[in-house]
Amino acid sequence: MRVTVLNGPNLNLLGTREPERYGKATLAEVESLVQVEAAQLGIELDWRQSNHEGALIDAIQALPGRADGLLLNAAGYTHTSVAIRDALLAVRIPFVEVHLSNVYAREEFRHRSLMADLAIGVIAGFGPQGYLLGLRALHSRLSDG
Amino acid sequence: MRVTVLNGPNLNLLGTREPERYGKATLAEVESLVQVEAAQLGIELDWRQSNHEGALIDAIQALPGRADGLLLNAAGYTHTSVAIRDALLAVRIPFVEVHLSNVYAREEFRHRSLMADLAIGVIAGFGPQGYLLGLRALHSRLSDG
Amino acid sequence: MRVTVLNGPNLNLLGTREPERYGKATLAEVESLVQVEAAQLGIELDWRQSNHEGALIDAIQALPGRADGLLLNAAGYTHTSVAIRDALLAVRIPFVEVHLSNVYAREEFRHRSLMADLAIGVIAGFGPQGYLLGLRALHSRLSDG
Amino acid sequence: MRVTVLNGPNLNLLGTREPERYGKATLAEVESLVQVEAAQLGIELDWRQSNHEGALIDAIQALPGRADGLLLNAAGYTHTSVAIRDALLAVRIPFVEVHLSNVYAREEFRHRSLMADLAIGVIAGFGPQGYLLGLRALHSRLSDG
Amino acid sequence: MRVTVLNGPNLNLLGTREPERYGKATLAEVESLVQVEAAQLGIELDWRQSNHEGALIDAIQALPGRADGLLLNAAGYTHTSVAIRDALLAVRIPFVEVHLSNVYAREEFRHRSLMADLAIGVIAGFGPQGYLLGLRALHSRLSDG
Amino acid sequence: MRVTVLNGPNLNLLGTREPERYGKATLAEVESLVQVEAAQLGIELDWRQSNHEGALIDAIQALPGRADGLLLNAAGYTHTSVAIRDALLAVRIPFVEVHLSNVYAREEFRHRSLMADLAIGVIAGFGPQGYLLGLRALHSRLSDG
Amino acid sequence: MRVTVLNGPNLNLLGTREPERYGKATLAEVESLVQVEAAQLGIELDWRQSNHEGALIDAIQALPGRADGLLLNAAGYTHTSVAIRDALLAVRIPFVEVHLSNVYAREEFRHRSLMADLAIGVIAGFGPQGYLLGLRALHSRLSDG
Amino acid sequence: MRVTVLNGPNLNLLGTREPERYGKATLAEVESLVQVEAAQLGIELDWRQSNHEGALIDAIQALPGRADGLLLNAAGYTHTSVAIRDALLAVRIPFVEVHLSNVYAREEFRHRSLMADLAIGVIAGFGPQGYLLGLRALHSRLSDG
Amino acid sequence: MRVTVLNGPNLNLLGTREPERYGKATLAEVESLVQVEAAQLGIELDWRQSNHEGALIDAIQALPGRADGLLLNAAGYTHTSVAIRDALLAVRIPFVEVHLSNVYAREEFRHRSLMADLAIGVIAGFGPQGYLLGLRALHSRLSDG
Amino acid sequence: MRVTVLNGPNLNLLGTREPERYGKATLAEVESLVQVEAAQLGIELDWRQSNHEGALIDAIQALPGRADGLLLNAAGYTHTSVAIRDALLAVRIPFVEVHLSNVYAREEFRHRSLMADLAIGVIAGFGPQGYLLGLRALHSRLSDG
Amino acid sequence: MRVTVLNGPNLNLLGTREPERYGKATLAEVESLVQVEAAQLGIELDWRQSNHEGALIDAIQALPGRADGLLLNAAGYTHTSVAIRDALLAVRIPFVEVHLSNVYAREEFRHRSLMADLAIGVIAGFGPQGYLLGLRALHSRLSDG
Amino acid sequence: MRVTVLNGPNLNLLGTREPERYGKATLAEVESLVQVEAAQLGIELDWRQSNHEGALIDAIQALPGRADGLLLNAAGYTHTSVAIRDALLAVRIPFVEVHLSNVYAREEFRHRSLMADLAIGVIAGFGPQGYLLGLRALHSRLSDG
Repeated sequence: MRVTVLNGPNLNLLGTREPERYGKATLAEVESLVQVEAAQLGIELDWRQSNHEGALIDAIQALPGRADGLLLNAAGYTHTSVAIRDALLAVRIPFVEVHLSNVYAREEFRHRSLMADLAIGVIAGFGPQGYLLGLRALHSRLSDG
Repeated sequence: MRVTVLNGPNLNLLGTREPERYGKATLAEVESLVQVEAAQLGIELDWRQSNHEGALIDAIQALPGRADGLLLNAAGYTHTSVAIRDALLAVRIPFVEVHLSNVYAREEFRHRSLMADLAIGVIAGFGPQGYLLGLRALHSRLSDG
Repeated sequence: MRVTVLNGPNLNLLGTREPERYGKATLAEVESLVQVEAAQLGIELDWRQSNHEGALIDAIQALPGRADGLLLNAAGYTHTSVAIRDALLAVRIPFVEVHLSNVYAREEFRHRSLMADLAIGVIAGFGPQGYLLGLRALHSRLSDG
Repeated sequence: MRVTVLNGPNLNLLGTREPERYGKATLAEVESLVQVEAAQLGIELDWRQSNHEGALIDAIQALPGRADGLLLNAAGYTHTSVAIRDALLAVRIPFVEVHLSNVYAREEFRHRSLMADLAIGVIAGFGPQGYLLGLRALHSRLSDG
Repeated sequence: MRVTVLNGPNLNLLGTREPERYGKATLAEVESLVQVEAAQLGIELDWRQSNHEGALIDAIQALPGRADGLLLNAAGYTHTSVAIRDALLAVRIPFVEVHLSNVYAREEFRHRSLMADLAIGVIAGFGPQGYLLGLRALHSRLSDG
Repeated sequence: MRVTVLNGPNLNLLGTREPERYGKATLAEVESLVQVEAAQLGIELDWRQSNHEGALIDAIQALPGRADGLLLNAAGYTHTSVAIRDALLAVRIPFVEVHLSNVYAREEFRHRSLMADLAIGVIAGFGPQGYLLGLRALHSRLSDG
Repeated sequence: MRVTVLNGPNLNLLGTREPERYGKATLAEVESLVQVEAAQLGIELDWRQSNHEGALIDAIQALPGRADGLLLNAAGYTHTSVAIRDALLAVRIPFVEVHLSNVYAREEFRHRSLMADLAIGVIAGFGPQGYLLGLRALHSRLSDG
Repeated sequence: MRVTVLNGPNLNLLGTREPERYGKATLAEVESLVQVEAAQLGIELDWRQSNHEGALIDAIQALPGRADGLLLNAAGYTHTSVAIRDALLAVRIPFVEVHLSNVYAREEFRHRSLMADLAIGVIAGFGPQGYLLGLRALHSRLSDG
Repeated sequence: MRVTVLNGPNLNLLGTREPERYGKATLAEVESLVQVEAAQLGIELDWRQSNHEGALIDAIQALPGRADGLLLNAAGYTHTSVAIRDALLAVRIPFVEVHLSNVYAREEFRHRSLMADLAIGVIAGFGPQGYLLGLRALHSRLSDG
Repeated sequence: MRVTVLNGPNLNLLGTREPERYGKATLAEVESLVQVEAAQLGIELDWRQSNHEGALIDAIQALPGRADGLLLNAAGYTHTSVAIRDALLAVRIPFVEVHLSNVYAREEFRHRSLMADLAIGVIAGFGPQGYLLGLRALHSRLSDG
Repeated sequence: MRVTVLNGPNLNLLGTREPERYGKATLAEVESLVQVEAAQLGIELDWRQSNHEGALIDAIQALPGRADGLLLNAAGYTHTSVAIRDALLAVRIPFVEVHLSNVYAREEFRHRSLMADLAIGVIAGFGPQGYLLGLRALHSRLSDG
Repeated sequence: MRVTVLNGPNLNLLGTREPERYGKATLAEVESLVQVEAAQLGIELDWRQSNHEGALIDAIQALPGRADGLLLNAAGYTHTSVAIRDALLAVRIPFVEVHLSNVYAREEFRHRSLMADLAIGVIAGFGPQGYLLGLRALHSRLSDG
């Protein structure tokens, strides 16, 4: 079972960016954490990050044949990108939407996701643990189907 | 560590209610599943369900001194109950909001939660597994704090 | 053929409540009237009323196996209760929505029903006669199907 | 007692138009059905249909002196015609609004009627039977007043 | 002169619930305070609280013959309950709407009351003193009429 | 100088239609009144009325070469007809919009006109005198230009 | 018969202010024009202008006993002043609302008047002639009543 | 292959109506142009125009058995007519929506079509050439199916 | 303890202005009434009224050093004046917002106050007694602090 | 005559992406088809695709001197990109907006284009044929001008 | 070159009013600062302040012949005054809109200016320095034109 | 003191792009102009431009350690990019938002900035001079802090 984790804009700053909101772990540290969980679940993990909407679309388009599922944290593009939505519609790969912060406790425009209705489900507010939970959820779904 | 799981209206019908959406497991079967996970995490679990908004408020009010955290699936009241929100504000117990179905893929009025901004986080769309994920998330937070 | 008539909040005050709007017949008198019609149509009638949203949900949940159809006048909850909507979605019993007053000639918030799209149809504005008309409509549908 | 039934645009296609929504009976067959009911109630029935908004207005204007009540299915004009509303305001004849389909289960713009607040009441979703129910409701009101 | 004071959901937590917003006096202490004022005004006071919307409706329905006026703090139900509004419309007892906190300085959804237009008037933001002020206002109105 | 007066739906009922709102003069009586004023101003008047939107459009299209200005009371179509707007855009004849009643004191949907921005100006609320005022205004503008 | 003409902010600039929109006549010239018409109609005219909302309110409050009717061009305050509305509600003097320009062909916020529903009627778009038309309309109404 | 071209209100004025927007060709000249194209494509063309909403509905209802496809330019009715939408729903004939002007560069209310979602597709902004393009599009679709 | 009472536009007409809504007492009579209460509470009262927004702002700006608290009835300016809000923000004097009528039972635009969130609290609907209640509330707050 | 065809995000997936909506032809196959048409019209075609908003902007900026017209299918960016709109405003090259699917029959947010008002016109819903139709439309316009 | 600086309501409180937002400099101190800059730029400065909307309008009307440009900080009236907008439209003097605080970081209603579209430009958020920047901007524009 | 100037999409076209709106100076010429000012203020300037949202985010992320302040003209991304907002939130560098044109005099969607509330302040409408003004403002703030 292969899973890609796709991280959107500014997630490369994890650990330094608003640590009171996003925690002190860097993205690399979070990746290590998730790799351990993945190994336990027998999942081969591909971890990526980009600040570019187009690069995220390219990455999603490349998923068929390379991944069985997707953990997607599109960050700021979650609320504005019809193009990423369309990429997800195009490849139809099962995915889980993850947010580190509780988007529902923030600005109004963060309450709307242009992708969430296409996802298996959404996990928001649990910091890096959200990736672990999302991986488990994705693993269950992929094991079922 | 003690956790209460509070289930709102119609969740008692689980297994028979729209099984294509909510799955075939009954609420009792889900409870068993979650009890196993709770035991592993060293959590004492109190599992409740009510169709009555007032009863859910009573239950939330009773939490202080009885529980360290709350898993809340307020179901239909999620979108309409200021009174449950006020109970959560009053007791200020850490809680995770769980939904079995992906509420973001359903009617517009299910996209708004009157409680989510008060929660640690939200988990939606993973069926009964959502309780397991929520329990883990709650366990981490309570262990940290 | 068994039909439950479920009356929501304040309908127990019928006859004394705003008689210029709702008429002078009491709920018991209306029930007698409807029982006569039911008898003629060969329908066994179960007549209930509650001011409690949760009690109405309990009653709807109890319908499968006890009733073939439902006449529902959810009164004030018509416009606010996602939870009653969910109960109707769960039991999937054929129902007719009845209102004594012409809700479209009243406050804006009474124009929206959270249940009407799930109903066979809606009857509003004819006072107690609405129950008779609804019973006939339900009878036809149940006889067809 | 004389009642006019006024059918708006596209109702002449009944039986062939979206039969899964509107049923297989033609408008003439529905008229026959209603004529039988009218006869039993001692009502003289005048049955009309037009696709033209202006013709419907002409017909409503002609009602005083010719009819004691009106069954109105303005179809598509229900949601858009201030002019028909004004005709109804002008002649002030008691009327019942009937819709074959459950308009509340269809597009948002069908939920608003520009006439319903002027009607005695509204009946929607019961197919041709709606006319029978509406005729009964109108008969009761006219007999009372 | 008899006055009922009806307290809605979570007001039983007064003194412990968000004391920085609602003060440190318990509901019982507030009741004592109001009883003194009532005695001075020659008012017989009936003090009630419930977390249940239906129970509040039951209590309002029971007012005729038992009370000359009502002090109503419907708390969270103020903003969502058409059913309580309908109960107030049904019994048509003079009432004053009281809120402990300044609802206009809080979330947008607390600015709308589904009952205030039916009240004699509204008093908000003065903590427990609001009941004293409301009682005086009610006393004046009842003495006039 | 030739002026057409175009009256929309239900204006043929003038005198009998809501006399408390529109006055007791019939449309023929109003026409006579306006004819006298027109004669004094040296205006040749063409007076028309139709309940049909299409007929009003036909009439507007026929204006070039037949009339120098238009008094338009499109009645109910004022608020809904893009097609009449387009006819006015097409013939570009100077026109004055007249309403008998004060539309701004009525339903919200009567506050919007789909034509008023194309008119020289608007006169509303003065009953039949509105035609006299409009004729004068039109006469001035046509005499200027 | 005494009529006050009350001109709001910036009307003192008439003749120099946007002459392509408001014409080249000064306010004094317009006053002269209207005085002639008033004399013919046997009306004693009181002509005022102020840029101050409060001064306009003072002037309206002073009307009872001094004027039988009011021509009001509240200019920019038309769209924003609840306080002028309240003054008009307080003195309940018959008035006509006049605008020089066609407000419906300008910015959206000029389409709403906070006073128009209290007026006998509205005249907009005819430049200074609007005062003459308004005076006639007011004269007719005052002569009737 | 038979195609009907249905032209809505004011299109009979083509060539004289706002020539800077709609071009100088008359409707007859456009028809000739389209007839040539139709002949080349082996299409039998039926060309119609009406200013009457009802007449357009009649024409749409008459299509089954007479035409294999429809080119529809409903002009002003595009944005307001639920009744034409219902006629299109009723006959379910494949159609292409054509607009001469670029409606998206005009008033907001022209951006919404009540029919476009039922069409094969939409062509707007190309003047008379739009009919040629639409005919080709329709021909392709009809040839496929 | 010194308290200023600031009355906004049209309150000088009290007693003659819409007496069915505002009562028959003049502003001077109300002042006397409030002076008595103030004397009992040991409050030195400064009573003012103006129809001018700017004058109300001037008065608010003058409060520091002259008053310990403010009773504010900004009347029509309540709903429109950002400038008065800014004056209140600037001087930060504790104030109570008072309305004679129940603004929540009137036009929609009266339900919004641009100041209420800055106030200690709001009292509306009790006529002149509102000032007495407000004075008491202010007295308590000032005595506490 | 030189024309650039600019294809936005996910169009590189044509043929595999939602074939039931977009057809089975790949983008390369569509390009071939359009090249044939271009050759017949004597058009030199430059065919491009990118998933990157910035790259599309770069490409539009490069048009002056390289192309006489543009066929633009901005796909998901159509509905969200002010920056692409600005690029089109900057280069002011004539363009036609093309969509493969009927965007008006899809999600509400696809009904709005941030570019359409700048285009010559819009063609939507005809699959790959849309490019052929758009090329013809562009050819006509460029030949005229 | 003569420039008027017009300061709206509450700016006279500068230095004492919310110093954490507006700084500690008084309006007189700011004026001195700006006078120095004006002198360097060869500008004759006229510095004014009023809390009265009407006085601000009077001042704007007096500008022609007295000033070549205007620095306008209309403070609270920025968001509500159509009348000030109209004065600016009437005198058509070049002006720069200045705000001390960053209005876009405050309440929603402060994000809309009724004047900004008429200004050369807007400067907000830089405290008293905003006047210096605005003066420079105005100086450049006036030197160009 | 080091300042980065970040220019968003299409600003590379300055001088050729809509010169009537943006002026005739090229971006290089504007840079020279700003370099002179920077030199005088003792600022080391880093000038960048990109059409790519992701590249702008990369550039903002790179600021800590390289720049003390930022002049940001995000152009079209100002109104749509949550991701750029998040980058600004992440690096928390002081910045000034600059727009060449007066965005408040243009399309509605340009009135909203997703970044302005995070900025020190906003300068819009002064063409290239805006950079000079912004640099001064930034210099003052950085010198203070």
